[in-house]
This record gives sequence, structure tokens and C-alpha cells, in this order.
Amino acid sequence: MTDRHLIPKAINPLHQLRVMGRLVRRASKKPGTAPGTLVHTGPKKMERVRIRFLDYDADQLREAEPTSIEECLYLKDLPTVSWINVDGLHDIGLLEKVGQHFGWHPLMLEDIVSVGQRAKVEEYQDAVFIVLPMLSWDTERQQISEEQLSLVLGENYVFTFQEREGDVFDEVRERIRTERGRIRKSGPDYLAYALMDAVVDHYFRALEGIGDLTESLEGEVLLDPKEHTMHVLHSLKRELIAVRRSIWPLRDMMNSLLRNENGLFSSTTRIYLRDVHDHSVQVLDTVEALRDVSSGMVDLYLSTVSYRTNEIMKVLTIMASIFIPLTFLAGLYGMNFEYMPELHLRWAYPTLLGVMAAMGLGMVAYFKRKGWF
Amino acid sequence: MTDRHLIPKAINPLHQLRVMGRLVRRASKKPGTAPGTLVHTGPKKMERVRIRFLDYDADQLREAEPTSIEECLYLKDLPTVSWINVDGLHDIGLLEKVGQHFGWHPLMLEDIVSVGQRAKVEEYQDAVFIVLPMLSWDTERQQISEEQLSLVLGENYVFTFQEREGDVFDEVRERIRTERGRIRKSGPDYLAYALMDAVVDHYFRALEGIGDLTESLEGEVLLDPKEHTMHVLHSLKRELIAVRRSIWPLRDMMNSLLRNENGLFSSTTRIYLRDVHDHSVQVLDTVEALRDVSSGMVDLYLSTVSYRTNEIMKVLTIMASIFIPLTFLAGLYGMNFEYMPELHLRWAYPTLLGVMAAMGLGMVAYFKRKGWF
Amino acid sequence: MTDRHLIPKAINPLHQLRVMGRLVRRASKKPGTAPGTLVHTGPKKMERVRIRFLDYDADQLREAEPTSIEECLYLKDLPTVSWINVDGLHDIGLLEKVGQHFGWHPLMLEDIVSVGQRAKVEEYQDAVFIVLPMLSWDTERQQISEEQLSLVLGENYVFTFQEREGDVFDEVRERIRTERGRIRKSGPDYLAYALMDAVVDHYFRALEGIGDLTESLEGEVLLDPKEHTMHVLHSLKRELIAVRRSIWPLRDMMNSLLRNENGLFSSTTRIYLRDVHDHSVQVLDTVEALRDVSSGMVDLYLSTVSYRTNEIMKVLTIMASIFIPLTFLAGLYGMNFEYMPELHLRWAYPTLLGVMAAMGLGMVAYFKRKGWF
Amino acid sequence: MTDRHLIPKAINPLHQLRVMGRLVRRASKKPGTAPGTLVHTGPKKMERVRIRFLDYDADQLREAEPTSIEECLYLKDLPTVSWINVDGLHDIGLLEKVGQHFGWHPLMLEDIVSVGQRAKVEEYQDAVFIVLPMLSWDTERQQISEEQLSLVLGENYVFTFQEREGDVFDEVRERIRTERGRIRKSGPDYLAYALMDAVVDHYFRALEGIGDLTESLEGEVLLDPKEHTMHVLHSLKRELIAVRRSIWPLRDMMNSLLRNENGLFSSTTRIYLRDVHDHSVQVLDTVEALRDVSSGMVDLYLSTVSYRTNEIMKVLTIMASIFIPLTFLAGLYGMNFEYMPELHLRWAYPTLLGVMAAMGLGMVAYFKRKGWF
Amino acid sequence: MTDRHLIPKAINPLHQLRVMGRLVRRASKKPGTAPGTLVHTGPKKMERVRIRFLDYDADQLREAEPTSIEECLYLKDLPTVSWINVDGLHDIGLLEKVGQHFGWHPLMLEDIVSVGQRAKVEEYQDAVFIVLPMLSWDTERQQISEEQLSLVLGENYVFTFQEREGDVFDEVRERIRTERGRIRKSGPDYLAYALMDAVVDHYFRALEGIGDLTESLEGEVLLDPKEHTMHVLHSLKRELIAVRRSIWPLRDMMNSLLRNENGLFSSTTRIYLRDVHDHSVQVLDTVEALRDVSSGMVDLYLSTVSYRTNEIMKVLTIMASIFIPLTFLAGLYGMNFEYMPELHLRWAYPTLLGVMAAMGLGMVAYFKRKGWF
Repeated sequence: MTDRHLIPKAINPLHQLRVMGRLVRRASKKPGTAPGTLVHTGPKKMERVRIRFLDYDADQLREAEPTSIEECLYLKDLPTVSWINVDGLHDIGLLEKVGQHFGWHPLMLEDIVSVGQRAKVEEYQDAVFIVLPMLSWDTERQQISEEQLSLVLGENYVFTFQEREGDVFDEVRERIRTERGRIRKSGPDYLAYALMDAVVDHYFRALEGIGDLTESLEGEVLLDPKEHTMHVLHSLKRELIAVRRSIWPLRDMMNSLLRNENGLFSSTTRIYLRDVHDHSVQVLDTVEALRDVSSGMVDLYLSTVSYRTNEIMKVLTIMASIFIPLTFLAGLYGMNFEYMPELHLRWAYPTLLGVMAAMGLGMVAYFKRKGWF
Repeated sequence: MTDRHLIPKAINPLHQLRVMGRLVRRASKKPGTAPGTLVHTGPKKMERVRIRFLDYDADQLREAEPTSIEECLYLKDLPTVSWINVDGLHDIGLLEKVGQHFGWHPLMLEDIVSVGQRAKVEEYQDAVFIVLPMLSWDTERQQISEEQLSLVLGENYVFTFQEREGDVFDEVRERIRTERGRIRKSGPDYLAYALMDAVVDHYFRALEGIGDLTESLEGEVLLDPKEHTMHVLHSLKRELIAVRRSIWPLRDMMNSLLRNENGLFSSTTRIYLRDVHDHSVQVLDTVEALRDVSSGMVDLYLSTVSYRTNEIMKVLTIMASIFIPLTFLAGLYGMNFEYMPELHLRWAYPTLLGVMAAMGLGMVAYFKRKGWF
Repeated sequence: MTDRHLIPKAINPLHQLRVMGRLVRRASKKPGTAPGTLVHTGPKKMERVRIRFLDYDADQLREAEPTSIEECLYLKDLPTVSWINVDGLHDIGLLEKVGQHFGWHPLMLEDIVSVGQRAKVEEYQDAVFIVLPMLSWDTERQQISEEQLSLVLGENYVFTFQEREGDVFDEVRERIRTERGRIRKSGPDYLAYALMDAVVDHYFRALEGIGDLTESLEGEVLLDPKEHTMHVLHSLKRELIAVRRSIWPLRDMMNSLLRNENGLFSSTTRIYLRDVHDHSVQVLDTVEALRDVSSGMVDLYLSTVSYRTNEIMKVLTIMASIFIPLTFLAGLYGMNFEYMPELHLRWAYPTLLGVMAAMGLGMVAYFKRKGWF
Repeated sequence: MTDRHLIPKAINPLHQLRVMGRLVRRASKKPGTAPGTLVHTGPKKMERVRIRFLDYDADQLREAEPTSIEECLYLKDLPTVSWINVDGLHDIGLLEKVGQHFGWHPLMLEDIVSVGQRAKVEEYQDAVFIVLPMLSWDTERQQISEEQLSLVLGENYVFTFQEREGDVFDEVRERIRTERGRIRKSGPDYLAYALMDAVVDHYFRALEGIGDLTESLEGEVLLDPKEHTMHVLHSLKRELIAVRRSIWPLRDMMNSLLRNENGLFSSTTRIYLRDVHDHSVQVLDTVEALRDVSSGMVDLYLSTVSYRTNEIMKVLTIMASIFIPLTFLAGLYGMNFEYMPELHLRWAYPTLLGVMAAMGLGMVAYFKRKGWF
Repeated sequence: MTDRHLIPKAINPLHQLRVMGRLVRRASKKPGTAPGTLVHTGPKKMERVRIRFLDYDADQLREAEPTSIEECLYLKDLPTVSWINVDGLHDIGLLEKVGQHFGWHPLMLEDIVSVGQRAKVEEYQDAVFIVLPMLSWDTERQQISEEQLSLVLGENYVFTFQEREGDVFDEVRERIRTERGRIRKSGPDYLAYALMDAVVDHYFRALEGIGDLTESLEGEVLLDPKEHTMHVLHSLKRELIAVRRSIWPLRDMMNSLLRNENGLFSSTTRIYLRDVHDHSVQVLDTVEALRDVSSGMVDLYLSTVSYRTNEIMKVLTIMASIFIPLTFLAGLYGMNFEYMPELHLRWAYPTLLGVMAAMGLGMVAYFKRKGWF
């Protein structure tokens, strides 16, 4: 058994449970407020909103990081593919300006800021709105952290909104810059595919983290189950419940993208989407398998503890069954009655010792025959 | 560990179980009575029926709280949007008058008073009848209370029937009064949407309550599982069973509203209904996740208790295994036989003490090697 | 805690299990016999077959209880609605006569006498054949008893066959007699609906009984779980398995009635059937919820027993751990060695007493710190 | 409690498990061999193949038991209905001859000899190929034995292949001989129905056996759970898993027969097939219910054993808690210190006896108040 | 009980778990890289890539093992059926050449090298791409090893890619060489069928291995459950989870092949594919049954251990309850009080012995009546 089976000491199930309190997301909006009312429901994860755009076609590429959203609005009228990425969702004004300029439905804006949406695809008049969870593995806390990606695909642009800066899309940016693959020769639908593909590829990373934790736990349950082991196992199961809930809608969502024949996705790109669909299903399969394994671990834990209690009871019962009768006999001849004839017999003591030895050995033989040791 | 993990002392599982006796609703109607026979099946939750209406279009707004239903009947013939809200269902006469005037099917009236219906949408000739459960969190008793909302959408009116007064619709009223959002410019279908949206938004509030209780319980199971913990956990699971049963039909119901292309809901409003559908599914997801977590807590409880029993047994076995043989030895030399040569040996006593110490230490070493402490 | 949480003493799980042996129905027919061979497979539940009929239209009503079936056959040719009810199924000759006169398929007759059929709707050339389970709560034995209702709907008649007399249809009879509701003005399809509605309404009564038993059990599991508690719980679960099996096919059956557009049910009546469908689903929901609750009770029982064993072990371990070492010490100085210098020291006895007190208190402190009491 | 609740002594779970090793059927064919390669995969269950045929129409009947298959081949060209039954599958040559003469697809022949196929219906150019499991209850070994029936329905013939002789079809033969029912007046499709009906009717017999065993086990778990009880319960559950796997595909198979409008089954016969479908579903329902009940028995077993351990611990703890402190006190005054003033007091002994009695009674009162007895 | 119920000593659950760490496959590709980027994700299982081809029609056969892929490319233009098999996937250059020459979609190439794909069928312009898991039983380690087979079916060729050399296809090769069956007379679609059939046939072999292990485990749980037993059982369950995940998509995949009417598979071959579909479903059924059985074993294990703990507790309680009171009595009369009148009575000692015997026998009788032994 090597170190990899040791659960990181840092894991504090109580802490994790508190963080995972996200099972029920806090709603900050007042129930009944008008739809399209923009209230950012997540924690503010970064100081100021960061805007970056890439505008390209097969021949040219422009890249910039403007300080205000107004500098991006003209991209709408260019024939090139524009990808505008916004990190940070708390600037409601910015969103309203974008929404108005690009003619987005108020519900779409509401969904962008109300993080914690289910994965979904919604078709509006001239835009497809996609919500995807982004999962990443926090190696320090040994848990998964989740974020919402909102993607708006228009005729010649892709907007992406993230809760905070991340490196998920760096590789895609690099591909655009270096003209690797067919991305520069394709339209915004292919860009949208490439971004979704990057998100789904990242799921595997998160699952690797959770898979490692599962294996460590399995080793601990097999070798040395402790109370803490069960606590970590419980928090792992909770983690899996949360992940499954996030990822479950993906399959339906990808299916509806694939089936939609007259949308903004070209048939060439839809072949690529099929690949993302396959990966989504694979992620789901893995989560289900991990859930099954973690259920098995509960059985294993309970069985092991039961078995050990059984072993302990055997030791106790053997010790007590051998010595309690002997102690009684010793006590018997320790009594102070005046008239106890045995006490005065010459061979009484050695005889008794012999009887005691016989009784003890008899007990041992009995338990051996019962297969107790 | 902070206070938030302490389960409110007030929780009395037996009391809650009794209240939750609602798993099987008492039927007050005699089986076999004619359909359309109006018998209010719920408890009478308020003294007298309260009627309020709002009548509006883009330009004007009338609001009133008439004392009798007759004062509302003329609204049927106005071209404006009329929203008549009735709190309290025990006035059968009132309902019959409304039903007759607006030409409603007798089964519809029966469903309004027979509270405890499943969520459903039913299309009648010129009205859509919607039944929705309303959930709210009773912070004092730490449990969910449920009520039935019946909504009738006609060509130019919306009727809502609640079991008792509540504040769920206050925000919608405010939006109508202050002309916030598009509600004043839209028809009764949008009003119906706004009301359903408010109801579903409230579900999240109820789930937050139940989520907090779940977390408190989880803390208690982790740190200090007691018999009472399991009782509260059982009543939580029962609560979740009841909530799930209420909310489960929502998805199908919303789906049938969305799919219905030639009903009273305009295509513009149906985009908004899609949002309510999403929220319903999210609520369901959350309830399922909470159920999974509470199942995990049962495992955790059982494992923890088993583990602790194991630990206790270890202490007992170690103590007994060390001292029972020693006590036997002491008893042996406490016997009063006349002829026990050892008793008269000078070094017998210290030798025996040494043997005893060796035996004791041997036992300790044995248990240590077994990893028992 | 009041008396309602006490399980009726009369409940004898072994007896109930024997009665519930119905999980696998005894087949009395020889496998491979020709279809349409009429063998009554249930126990004979009444002495002689009882026939009653009601023949009516909007204007007139005839009611009779003929002694032989021949007196009913002429009803076939009347334009009025005829409802012939037969209680008792063991008179094969009677059935054959009816079948021949009304032109029924032999399989239909076979299903009428082979009780224990699944709920189903079957369309024949000019009749609809409906099989429905009838459930009622036997308050004495605290269990559900089940019976089969076979209903044949023809163009102008309804035949109902029950295993024994019951009061389920009394209210419907009363409505016909007193011209309450629209039953007298409607055709035989409405009558069939009214009868099915009465049967389904009765399910709620049966569920109330089972719900009360569930609550009583829950109270007992919470307060004082005994071996008998678990036995009753097991027989409750078995009861629910049987009920679920009976009711499960109802939904599909009602759906196929609703979807069938060109059958004997008019579109007006189908609106009413939708109501029966809703009630069937509600019954199913309730049974599922009761099953979930009873599963939860098993967990609760096991947890409670485990917890109590744990508590008992604590007491034993504390007592044993405190006194076994002290007893050893006392035994030590009870030995009869000649040379035990301590025995002759003046302060040895009180010193030892002090040491013993210290050891005992030390143990108590140790267990207290461990949180054992 | 009567004898019927005693599990037959003859049941040897280990033996049964070995027999039931059929969960994974041994494949005797080399993977990758050409399709249509005939290798009989089951054990040879009878010495020599037995062939019997019945050839009939409404007016005439021929019955024979030829020694070689060649004597049957001419039946293909007769207009009458021919039923050829073959018991024993190890004569590959015979099958090849039949296959060639009747023009069957090689895969069909392969399926006939590769026993252990799933129930299925396959349509070939001018034959319908049906595979059905035959279940029967082995009362001696208290377990179900399974066999494969292959049925080929051609335009004017029915072939049936069984692994060994059985009496399942005797009743059908009798009906043909005695012209009971409509079998003689109907075509081969009705004969195929009659045979399938006989097979499915036999399932109920097998389920009765398994139901009786279930009840016996239930009684034993309730009254006196032993280690052997759990072993038999486990083998019952395994039996149910195997039965369910065999019967599960029946529903789909019957459905596809019912839906097929232009096959060899006439619409008149399809009404009868609906009956077989109903019975199949009923069998499945029963198996599911038995599985649920047997799961409940595991819970019952575990709960009962836990409860009894709890009771045993109570006895131990009460005995130990009362007497261990008293024994300590007795040991205390058995010490041999020179200076123990109490020893010389006149009332010391009776006083100590009093104290001991008080302590003992105090303990008893404490445990009584705790509700331990 | 024979040896076959002994679990091979070689089984080391921890080792197996580590190998089975494949639950979450390591992704070696950087998330977000361009689709079609070829990175072999599995371990390199053989030194150098091995290429073999068979080119045949009804009249001729060519077989070769070229050292470079260039020597195969001309096969594309021959009208004969060519089967090119590649063992080993790490030569990316080779794959790129093949892909370019045969005009395959980049995603197809990516899937060939990214082993661990779900089973799937994908239709491209003029090729069908099939991914199938290959399972084999490693008798030494008593576990299943999995490999990916990629099969590309073109108009006149079949390409197969395996991770390493194996003997799964030897029989098919032999059939081609010896002109057994119809393979030489059929097109590449039949060849593809034959290969898939061989793969699925091999599943049964793997299941036999796992079935044997299951039976051994069952014997051990029945006869002598140890901690190691549960560990092996857990690794068996994990194995089944992994196998099920691999095989689950097969059914859908085979279905989509069967339904596809205008693909590369002729209708004659599709009849054979139906057979593969049946086998896939049978494999799935078996895996499900094994999962059910292994769940049952966990119950059996827990019940057995609980029952044995119960038995052990009985022994302890009986011994302690009999002797602890007697020891107390003996201790009582071992006290050294000066005034203990009983000590000086002549018949005190024999009387006490009598009382002790009575107490002991009374206890024995009490426990006997309780049914404890």
C-alpha cells in the first residue's frame, strides 16, 4: 500500500459540506419580480469585469481587451467572426447595453446573470442561447468547483459570459491565433462548437480528481476504515450528487442541438457536435459508475466494521468464557467456611489445578472446533 | 462547528409526522356522489372569504375589494384584463354563482374546492384550468406547508382561488400598479404566466428552508449522532417524499402548456412559460438531490453508530482481556487450601507480581499489534 | 403520544401473511385447457348469486331483483339504459346464458370468472370490457381486501359482475333513483363512468386505512421499537406491494380509454373519464409515497436498534472498565502469601482505598471526556 | 404456526447455487464460428430424440410417432394443419434435414440448438420463429427448472422443439383429439397460440411453488431466523433473478406479435394472443412482487437479528452491572490487610449485606426506568 | 464443498482496484485542442505496429503481412473485399496516411486513437465507423481486461484497429481461408458482421470467468465469510460496474445499425446483425443478473456476520450470567469479617454449594426457555 491511498489530511468534511451547501442555491431575487429583471445571483468572484475580443476570418485577426463594452458594439456589423468574452457578471449596466444593441430577449439576459441555471439550449429569433456548467477540480480542497458559462451564438458573433477568469479557452484562443485546425476558415457556429468542446473536455479533468479521491478512499476503507473515512465518503457522494445534477441535462441539450436541422449550426459543424455529445454521455457514464462505486464503498465499510466487531466479540467471549468459570472456582475455595473438608486434603490443590487446566483447555478446544480462532 | 448545525430544539418529529399525516389526504366526500358536487375537502383556513380584483389595460387600472362576488361578475363583459383573486374556499354558494356566470364545467368547480389535487392543466371550451401546489416554509415548525392554487384563464380574465391569504402575489400586484415590466401591456395569458412564475419562484424559498435543515442534520450526524437525530432525519425524508409528490407532475403539466399551440397562450407568452418550465425542472432536480443526500445520511448514521459500537467493544475487550486472567490468578492464591506450597515461598509474591505485569503488558502489546489502539 | 400510535393488538403478522398469500394466486384451471373454459378461480364468497337491475331513461325508472337471469335478457332490446349487476361468480350456467344472449367473446367470460385479472380495457365488436380491482379496508384485521369488478358496456346496457355484495354502488343507485346529477339524462357510457368513479373513490378509503396503520407504526418505531413492530411493518410493506400491483395498470388502462376516440364513450363522457384518470394517478402517487415512507421506517428501525445497542454497550463497558481493575486489586490483597509486606503496613488499607477511588474517578473522567455520558 | 412454514430440510443452498450456476450459461461453441453452425449447447437431457406429429383439419385427424424425421417431411405438402413435436435437440442431422426441407434460415436452426436464448419472435420469409422459456417447479429440490421451447409456425404447419419430454402440451393434444374448443376448426396460427398459452399457463404453476417457498421462509424469518434461513433466502432471490431474466423479454415479444398486422397470425387469433400477453404481464408482475417481498425479508432478517442482539446485550449488561460492583465490594473485604477496622465491627457484615442489596435493587430500578425490562 | 468455491489466493483486491482505476480514464490530450488532433490515449501495448490484410472474393484470396502501410493503399481500388487489420495504435503517421488515402473524417481518426470510447456507430459519407469494446478474462489476475476495436466499413474494404494482437479474429480468418460458410461469397458488410459477431461471442467467455468467480465468492460467503471475502466481493462489483458501462451502449448501437435501411449493410446481412443484437442483449441481461446476485451477496454477508455476532453474544451472555452471580456469592463468603455467623455453621458450605447449583441450573433453564441454545 503506497501513499496514494491516503486521503489528504486537509479534507474537512464539515467544511466541504458547508461549501457544498450549494445543493440548494440561494435565490437573491424576490419571487414574483418581473422577468428580465437583472440581479446577479452568484457571489462576486472578481473585482472588475474583464472584456476580451477576437475578430477574425481566414485572412485577418484582430484581438483586443477594451475597457468598456461600447468599444465592442461595432463588431456586430462586421462580416467577420467576432468572439467577445466577458469575465465577471456583476456589471448589470454592461449587460443591458449589450442586450439592447444585439437585440436579445430579456429572459436571456436574466439567465446570464442568474447563475446556477440548468444546462440548456434556447433558440431565439436570431440567436442561440446556450448555458453550460464549467467544472474544475480544486486540488487543495479536493473538491469540484462549478461555474456557469453562457454562450450566445449570433449570425456573425459569439458572446461568452463567465463568472470569473479561467484558462479553459486559452487553447482555443491559441488555435485561432496560430491558424491551427479549421477554426479560422469556419463560421461562428464552429467557434461555438470549439468552446463547448473545450468545456466538456475539462469535465474529464475534474472527474480525474474525483476518481483519484475515490481510489484513495477505497484503499482506506479496505485497509483501515475510521470514522473520518466515512465522513469523507459521505462528502464524496454529495459531490457526485451535485456533479450529476449539473451534467445530467447535457445529454438532452446536446440532442436538441443535433436534431435541430434549420438552426445556426451548419451540417458540417453538427458532425463535430456529435463528438461533444459522445463526450457528454461518456462523462455521465463515468459519474454514474463513480456513484455505484461509492455506494459499494458504504457496503464495504459497514461490512468491514461489522466483521471487526464480530472479531472483537470473539476475543472477549473466549477470554471471558475461559476465565470466568475458573475465577469462580478459585473464589469458591477462597471462602472462609469453617467446615470445608476439601481444604484439608493433601492433593486438593493440585487436583483443582488439574481440573482448572482441563476446563480451560476444554473451552479452547470448543472454540477451536467452532472455528472461532 | 457553529450553531447553524444545531437542529432547532423545537422540532418534534412525532408532531411533524402527525401534521404530515397528509400523505394520505382525508376524503370528505362520500364515494360515488355525483361529479360536480361541491364539498370543500380541506380545513377551513380563514374566517371569511376575501375577494379582490384588479382590472387593467395599458392605460387604466381599477382595484377593489368587494364584499360579495356579485360585484365582480360584470367584469366578464369588459374588454380589459380582469384578475379576480378569491382567498378561502368554503363559500360553496359563491363558487356556484361564479361558475354559472362564467360558464365553467362542474368538474372544474369540484377540483377548485377539493384541495389536494395533482398539479394539472385542463383545457375547456373557453377556459384553461390550472391547478398548482403552493409551497412555503414554516420556519417555526421547520416544515413545509402546502396549499392549492386554482387558476382559471379566460379570454379576458384570470381567476385565482387560494385556500388562505398569502403574500405570494403581492409583487405581481405591485408590478401591475406601478406599470413595471410588460404586464400592463399584455393580455391575461401573460398575467397567468406571471402568477405561475411567482408560485414557482416561491418553491425555491421553501427548498432553502429544507436545505438549511438538511445541512444542520448533516452536521449533527457527522459530529454527534443521537436517537433524536435519526427521528428528525426520518421526518425530513418524509417531508421530501411529500414535496416530491406535489412537484413531480409540474414538469408534465408545463410541457403540455408549452406544446399546446392553439390555446389561450400566445406564442410570445409561451417563451416566458419555457422559463417557468425550466424553473420547475430545477426545483425537481433539487428535491431529488436532497433525497439522495438524505439517503446518504442514513448510511452515514448507521456507519457511524456501527463504528462507535466497534470502538466501545474494543475498550471493553481490552479491559476485560487484561484484567480477567489477572483476577483469576489473584483468586487462585486467595484460596484457603492447607497444602499450597507456593504460599510459603519467600519470593512467590513478587514473582507473581512480575508474572502478572508481564501478562498485562503482553496483552497490551498483543492488542497494539492488532491495531486496536 | 396518544393511543392512536398504538398498533391494534389484533394484528397478527403471521396470519396476515397467510392471507396475503395472494401474492401468487392459485390457478385452479388446468394449464392448456381451451380458452373460454369457464372455471371460477376465486373462493366462493356468497351463498347464492344475486341479480339486480335498474332500467331507466330521463323519464322512467324500473328496478327489480329477479331470481333468475332469464328475466333480464329482454332488457337487451329496450332502448333505455339497463344496468344489470350480478353479485357472485360461481354460477357458470348463468354466465354462459348471458354471454350467448349478448354475444360476448368467450375470453371475456373467462376473464369474468377468473378473478385476479389485471385492470384492463378490451374492445370487442360491440362491447367494451373493463376489469377493475375493488379495494376496501378491513378495519378489524387492519388489512386491505381485494375483489374484482368486471364491467361490460354495450350500446344500451351496462353489466357489472362482483365477487360478493358490497355497498360501493349504493350511492350511484341513489343518484339514479333521485335523478340527482346528469346520470338519468345520459347514456350507458356515463353510467359506466359513474361506476368506475365510485370504485376509484373507494380506493381513497382503503388508503386512509393503510395510512392510519402507517402512522401508528411510525409512532411505535419512533418511541418503542419491538420485534413485533418490525413484523407488522413487514406485513404493511407486503400489503403495499400487493396494492401497488393491483393499481399499477390503472393508469395505462385509463389512458387507453381516454385516447380511444371512436369507442362507445362519447366525448362529453370522456371529459369525466379524465377525472377518473386523475384520481387513479393520485392513488398511485399515494401508494408510492407510502412505500417510500415504509422503506424509511426500516432504516429508522435499524438505526434506532443500532443506536440503542450502542448505548447498552456503553453502560456495560463503563461498569466493567471501572470495576474489573478494582476487583483485581482487591483480589490481589486477598491472596494468602506468607510474605506480603504491604499487608502489615498500618496505612496500606486506606492508601489502597484512595488509589482505588482515584482509579475509579479517573475512569469516569476518561469516559466523560470521550462523551460517553 | 403450522408445518407449512417450515422450509423443507432437503434444501441445500450450496447445491442449489451450483445448479443455478446457469446465471452465466456455458458457451460450447467456439467464438467466431460461422453462423448457422449447429452445436447443441445444453446438456443432453434424453437418450434418443422422440418425434410425434398430429395432422388434422375439422374433419380428420392423424397421429403418429415416427422413428425417423423423414416420415414427417411429406406433411409440408398437405393442406391440413400439421404439428410436429421434437423432444431432444442433440440430433443435429435431423435438424439439418428439417431445415433444408422446410427452407429455414440457418440462424433459426442455430437458435433451436443453442438453448438458453432469450424469448423472441423473428419473422422470416414464410415462417415465424418463436423462442419461449418453459418453467416448471421441481418440488423435490424446491427450485425452478428451465427449458427452451422453439416453435416454428409455417403456412400449414407448426414445429415445436423441446429439450426433453414433458407434459405441458398433453392438454392441447387432448383438445385436438376430442375436438374440444375451436382448435380443430382453426389454422396453425391458432395451434401456435394454444401451445404458447399452455406454456404461459405453466408459469403460474412454477410461481406457485416459488410462492409457497417464499411463505415458508417468511414464517421462519418471523419466528426463528437462523443462518440457514438466510442461505435459503439468498438462493430464493437468485432463483427469482433467473426467472425474471427468462420472463422479462416476454412482454416485448408478445407486443411485437400483437402489433404485427400482416403476419401469419389472423386477426381472430390475435384477440387470443392478447390474452397470452395479459398472462405474461401478470407473471412478470408476480415475479416483481416476489422480488420486493424477498428484499423485505432481508430487511426483516437483519432487523430481527439486530433486535435480538440488542436484547441479549441488555441481559448481559444488567447481570454484569448488578454483580460486578457487588463482587468488588466482597473482594474488598476479603483482603488480608492487618489493619482493616471494619472487619472487627459487630454490624459490619449485616450492614454491608444491606448496602449490597440496596445497590443491587438500585441498579434494577435504574434499568427498569430505562425501559430495559 | 469442493475446491471450486475457494477464491484464488492470487486475488489482491487492492491491486485489482488499482488496475481498475480505469473507472475514470486518464485523458492525455490537452482540453481544447483542435478536433482531429491524433494523440494515442492508451498505454502502448505492443512494440511495433503489425499490419495484416486479407483480400478475397469468391474465387481468389490474397493474404499478406506488409511492413509498411503504403503496401496496403492500392487495395482501395480493387473490386475485391479487403480486410486490413492493424494491431497497435501508437503510430500516428500510419493512421494519418490511411485516413488521407481513404478520405476519412478527422474525428474518426481521433476516435481510433483515443481508446476508451463508448461503443458507437457513426455514418460518414462513404464509410461506417464502428467502435466496440473487446473484453477478455485474465484467468491469472481473475479480472476482465478491456480493449477498443475500431472498425471502418467502406464500399469494398473493412479496416480493423486493435490496441494489441489477439486471437479473437483467428476463427474468422480461418473461415475465409477455408471458404467455410458464406463469407467468401458475401461483401464487406458480411465480413464486418462476422467480426462483430466474433467480438460479441467473446463476451460470453469473459462472463464465464466472472461467473465462476461469483460462484466461488458465493460459496465463501455462505461457508466462511472473512474480511478478505468482502474485499474480493467489492472488487467483483467494481468489475461489473466497469463491464456494464462498456457493454450498455451496445444495444442502442446495434439497434441503430438494424434500423438504418439505406446504409452499407444489405438486408441479407441485417438478418445476421439481428443475431448479434440478440447476443448483445443477452450479455447485458447476464451482467445485470450478476449485479443483482452480487448485491444479494452483500446482504448475505452482512446478515451472516450479524447472525454470528448474535451467536457469540449469546455464548458470552450465558457464561457471564451463570458465573458472575456465583462468583459474587463465593466472594461474599471469602470476606474476612469477624462476625459472620454463617461461616461457623456445619452445613453452610454444602448448602451454599446447593444454592449455587440451583442458581446455575435455573439460569440454564431460563436461557433454554428463551431458545438461546
